[in-house]
Amino acid sequence: MTASVQHRHPPCIEFWFDFGSNYSYLSAMRIEELAGAAGVSVAWKPFLLGVIYRELGWKEPPFVTQVEKGRYAWRDTQRQARKYGIAFKLPSVFPRIALLPSRVAILGAQQPWQAAFCKNVMQQNWVLDQDINEAEQVLAALAGLVEDPARTLEQAQSDANKLKLREQTQLAREKGIFGAPTFFAGDEMFWGDDRLEDALRWFATPPAT
Amino acid sequence: MTASVQHRHPPCIEFWFDFGSNYSYLSAMRIEELAGAAGVSVAWKPFLLGVIYRELGWKEPPFVTQVEKGRYAWRDTQRQARKYGIAFKLPSVFPRIALLPSRVAILGAQQPWQAAFCKNVMQQNWVLDQDINEAEQVLAALAGLVEDPARTLEQAQSDANKLKLREQTQLAREKGIFGAPTFFAGDEMFWGDDRLEDALRWFATPPAT
Repeated sequence: MTASVQHRHPPCIEFWFDFGSNYSYLSAMRIEELAGAAGVSVAWKPFLLGVIYRELGWKEPPFVTQVEKGRYAWRDTQRQARKYGIAFKLPSVFPRIALLPSRVAILGAQQPWQAAFCKNVMQQNWVLDQDINEAEQVLAALAGLVEDPARTLEQAQSDANKLKLREQTQLAREKGIFGAPTFFAGDEMFWGDDRLEDALRWFATPPAT
Repeated sequence: MTASVQHRHPPCIEFWFDFGSNYSYLSAMRIEELAGAAGVSVAWKPFLLGVIYRELGWKEPPFVTQVEKGRYAWRDTQRQARKYGIAFKLPSVFPRIALLPSRVAILGAQQPWQAAFCKNVMQQNWVLDQDINEAEQVLAALAGLVEDPARTLEQAQSDANKLKLREQTQLAREKGIFGAPTFFAGDEMFWGDDRLEDALRWFATPPAT
């Protein structure tokens, strides 16, 4: 096992997430403040977790297949949200398809509006219980963040950008990602919202085997 | 969702664990100090997680079935152990059958030696890489804790005590347990070593829906 960390300036944590993932939601609402306090920048990495699940041979999300675990996960998410002071409403649809907002999110890579857009979409799903895969919601989530939301949405639907999301999802698979959220501190992978703090701390941890 | 907590004097956290579970190991080595600091007593509840998995229709532990997740879980356990200052060595057999020590552990319910015995067995599995289902190891884990280890082992093998373990495992199933460790703070269930602190905090949390 290697524990090397690429020391960039500043260090950058990769945040791999899916808009339909409840624990990704918790991380999306927490990561900027925590990373800022740790002097770490954040690279938001949207991907399609459903594609990964299928490639792993899982027909549905584990929370759907494993009924007992799924029931518990909702209670746990509610408790965690309360602990963190984050709004949370059990959505009427799970998991929500998030192809359209994911395309927009990947178009926004390294754009100043990306993080705010992603958090808007997360709140649509996890607080407002809205269908995030509809243009209406995506436009609302872009409002005030880009000059021309309709144009941004159009760009997100270009073949080149669609390919970008497919490639990013494939990269997630190659990196060994099997769930969301997943964080990378250099080469070190951390899975789950409850490892966010550990992932940020990793940059300051001396290498060990 | 109910959030009622039974306020006993002192409050008592139920710690449901399996000796073959890596995250149960971490909790076993942490719970006494944390619970003590929180003014909470600990009820150690050994059960057979493999029986639960079979009843849930899972042929193997999730970490075995889901290769990617399993590989990650070892790295995660290693990191968590290091964070907590707990020794950890990847065992050569996983999951280890733990029928014999579990019978002894349940015989020790409410006995002063139970916790120390359980921690001894955990260390045999997760530090010394020993076969914990052998009488030799069970006797070693009892040494110095009970007057006559051989007699204790014999009592553990009585029909009445065997039944006790089966009943406790069935109770785990009825309580909705699907993994280990699982904690109960009153009626509130918490799954996973990383929820231990939350479970202890629950006793001081005002009820909410």
